[in-house]
Amino acid sequence: MNEMMSKTAAFLRERDCFEILTHDYPDGDTLGSGYALCLVLQQMGKKARVITTSVPKGFTFLQKGVIPQEFEAQTVVSVDIADEKLLGKNREKYAGKIDLCIDHHMTNKIDAPLKLVEGYAAANCAILYKLFRFMDVEFTREIANCLYTGVSTDTGCFRYTNTTAETLRIGADILDIGCDSAYINKVMFETKTRKKIALEREIYDTIEYCFNDRCAIIAATLDIQRKLDVGDGELEGLATIPRQIEGVEIGITMREKEPGVFKVSVRTNGEVNAAQFCTRLGGGGHSAAAGCTVKGSLEEAKNKLKAVVEEVL
Amino acid sequence: MNEMMSKTAAFLRERDCFEILTHDYPDGDTLGSGYALCLVLQQMGKKARVITTSVPKGFTFLQKGVIPQEFEAQTVVSVDIADEKLLGKNREKYAGKIDLCIDHHMTNKIDAPLKLVEGYAAANCAILYKLFRFMDVEFTREIANCLYTGVSTDTGCFRYTNTTAETLRIGADILDIGCDSAYINKVMFETKTRKKIALEREIYDTIEYCFNDRCAIIAATLDIQRKLDVGDGELEGLATIPRQIEGVEIGITMREKEPGVFKVSVRTNGEVNAAQFCTRLGGGGHSAAAGCTVKGSLEEAKNKLKAVVEEVL
Repeated sequence: MNEMMSKTAAFLRERDCFEILTHDYPDGDTLGSGYALCLVLQQMGKKARVITTSVPKGFTFLQKGVIPQEFEAQTVVSVDIADEKLLGKNREKYAGKIDLCIDHHMTNKIDAPLKLVEGYAAANCAILYKLFRFMDVEFTREIANCLYTGVSTDTGCFRYTNTTAETLRIGADILDIGCDSAYINKVMFETKTRKKIALEREIYDTIEYCFNDRCAIIAATLDIQRKLDVGDGELEGLATIPRQIEGVEIGITMREKEPGVFKVSVRTNGEVNAAQFCTRLGGGGHSAAAGCTVKGSLEEAKNKLKAVVEEVL
Repeated sequence: MNEMMSKTAAFLRERDCFEILTHDYPDGDTLGSGYALCLVLQQMGKKARVITTSVPKGFTFLQKGVIPQEFEAQTVVSVDIADEKLLGKNREKYAGKIDLCIDHHMTNKIDAPLKLVEGYAAANCAILYKLFRFMDVEFTREIANCLYTGVSTDTGCFRYTNTTAETLRIGADILDIGCDSAYINKVMFETKTRKKIALEREIYDTIEYCFNDRCAIIAATLDIQRKLDVGDGELEGLATIPRQIEGVEIGITMREKEPGVFKVSVRTNGEVNAAQFCTRLGGGGHSAAAGCTVKGSLEEAKNKLKAVVEEVL
């Protein structure tokens, strides 16, 4: 890993004019990674910008300190992206053009000349923290805020099973640098919009328990999304609902992206491997949290998922 | 602080036949402290037992490894207790008899010959961890589980503002010893019963926004409680719902205890002082979390509360 750190550091020092790609439906870790790297590169005197399909409202503070720059891109870096498919509308433009891939997904499939992939890291921002330490970066509060956001959101604030002693020490180091953890924790973990509350209430009505209550499925259909006028910001995080229910081993969250196309999040407790589950449907991810896309009517898509549940339980 | 550590270590080595007192309505930190200290003392060849008013269902695993011992008490230690009032039904027996007080409340009022009180520690278990390190205790998984439970429950799993870099490093050290953090986090922070989910769904329908959405009120009436057959376990924690809503400065949770009698929890963000709010209705508490009792029909009780909201906003 130190060899890859070293190569990555040399690469960042040699190159210029960076475009940093984040994944579609961006979360705290991909955006935290993107803006942290952008801030570090600009601090190094490089030109850099983050490419994202959106910046959900709660995450705009991550952009603080980033200077908008005009330049022709020469170097493409992807952060927290396991597969080019996850580039969304940016896929066509950047497919096959990634020069450096920094990621923490075991299932990473990106074909890039340089890859810094650590499958056991709790968050991509944890890898970046170690890289920046290795590079002797001068940490600012803005960089620390980006890294803290990535590490805390991908671990449920140090609560999920991916949290290791190293993750907690990285958190401690970031707090020592100085970051707005109280603000970030409040926004990320203790604030819900009225729309989010309305959405949760509606989603509770969709809970379907099956296989002796060992599986729970919820569905945010386009009908619900339109009725409540909710977007990425509100839909983010729904996957914790079915997983939290006592006795549930497989929690499935279905989000209709376009008519008859469901983005599916699978969360597991205990024995079942979520990544293996999703691989059967063309997706991937981590052992306790993974995703895939399933097509068909709500009923058809559910049946496809239930068939896999039946196999794995 | 090192001098107090040193005196406390010497005291524990010299004495024997310990009774360890926990506070009433025991939580993860007082029970984690109690059983961790009991395990350490028994490991040292001493006789020790924990005195508690109850051990709630989710906390029984903390007793693992503790050997029931018959003996006549010679030494009384209190853990995580700021005031003898908090001994509940054990107050009469132990008042004025505490030999050693280990606590992390700034407001500690216990009169004892030896006190190890660190007001800035996020959890009492964080103080015990440092004491045990100082004493070169041989940490077992059972001791680690007790300490982790205390540290994690008192910090909302490292999310509350009392979490410092030191707290995170103590968490990391405890993970290194080896503890069942996944199990503990799951039980403490990520499990909701089906009844709890049903209750939340029902409560969402009762949310009333008022005063330009700066106040939100929810109500768990006896009708709802009976319909869903819910008790203390499910009703606990509802007060976080209105407080979490974006823009809400005063979150009010009404729980009907008997017909026409509402136990009211007030949670505030920002300027408004919850204790001052509740004092006007005969209650009290802390600046951000307080309570009172209001009588009348749901409508009448709400109107009494709204009248105070109008005054303070």
